[in-house]
Amino acid sequence: MNAFNQLVMERRSANNFLPNNPITQRELDEIFNVVKMAPSAFNLQHTNYLVVTEDGLKEQVQKAAFGQYKVGVASAVIIVTGDKEAYKNTEKVYEGLLMLGILNQQQYDDEVQDVVSLYESRGEEFQRDEAIRNASLSSMLFMLAAKNAGWATCPMIGFEPDKIKNLLAIPDHQEPVLMIVLGKEKVESRRPRGYRKPVGEFVKYY
Amino acid sequence: MNAFNQLVMERRSANNFLPNNPITQRELDEIFNVVKMAPSAFNLQHTNYLVVTEDGLKEQVQKAAFGQYKVGVASAVIIVTGDKEAYKNTEKVYEGLLMLGILNQQQYDDEVQDVVSLYESRGEEFQRDEAIRNASLSSMLFMLAAKNAGWATCPMIGFEPDKIKNLLAIPDHQEPVLMIVLGKEKVESRRPRGYRKPVGEFVKYY
Repeated sequence: MNAFNQLVMERRSANNFLPNNPITQRELDEIFNVVKMAPSAFNLQHTNYLVVTEDGLKEQVQKAAFGQYKVGVASAVIIVTGDKEAYKNTEKVYEGLLMLGILNQQQYDDEVQDVVSLYESRGEEFQRDEAIRNASLSSMLFMLAAKNAGWATCPMIGFEPDKIKNLLAIPDHQEPVLMIVLGKEKVESRRPRGYRKPVGEFVKYY
Repeated sequence: MNAFNQLVMERRSANNFLPNNPITQRELDEIFNVVKMAPSAFNLQHTNYLVVTEDGLKEQVQKAAFGQYKVGVASAVIIVTGDKEAYKNTEKVYEGLLMLGILNQQQYDDEVQDVVSLYESRGEEFQRDEAIRNASLSSMLFMLAAKNAGWATCPMIGFEPDKIKNLLAIPDHQEPVLMIVLGKEKVESRRPRGYRKPVGEFVKYY
């Protein structure tokens, strides 16, 4: 089987982790250097990752995740947020294209203006949708990149966003989208892989 | 470089496609057989893919996407939707675990009840968030699986959801989350890859 397909088949949402497997910042940085290639709308890079490895804080995060065991035993607990105000960085993101001469000043001004007015005119619901959409695209890439580096993950929505925002001092414009726990999987705790619908049930051809 | 990292680096959001490169349903099915391994909350598999390859319909979809050129020239245009009522399938998704004896009847009943009441109690905004979140996770896997099979893609939000829903007879409980165009990239139309923030700007360690 092709290496990519094998990676996808081997990735599982881990139920449990082996304790005492610290992950270094250097190992995490290598994963994030892959993750930064994720696509995002207008290349605004809405996604931020807050990585908790320190035991005391991890314990508090676990409490804000209804005490779930796998949070406590994970090597890292990662809160993925989406920036509802990412469009405010449009100028910075497009600056390089201006400096390289790919866009002239007029084109640059027009593109920046188009992006900013799209987000402003479509309002808060759209800005929040975009935060969730783009942070989720990035999160899938994170889980695959982590697996490729030898780490199991599990995406979770079972946590109290307000408590997490408080603990990690997350500003209001950052929407918590997912919690991802990461570690070395405790394979004995595995359930069989969950049922998957056949392609014909989720794909329709026109 | 590791094969996965190379795949990620080579994936680009394509600006333009070479015309007349039809993709077969069989090739698409192979991609979707990888995509079905995407994780989803409670394994509810919220995501659906509506694939348009027929020229007449593609032209109408292009009109609903503000006439964007790359839609017309793509081999396939894919609307990704998230099912806001995915939790109504909980029983079916967990049935296998009951039949295999992984869950006894009481555990099965409890798990089904927990999932359904979570979605019901958190209401419509949460159900819609979940549709966007899970369909986006799946979409990232789709774009990588397509690239791995030799096809370029571009995720797009520039389309009119109501017109698309009308054209493809999408029911109200299905939320259009992304349009993805797929084809053989016209490499001459490439811009340099967009600027990416360094890891230190989107990752914070605690």
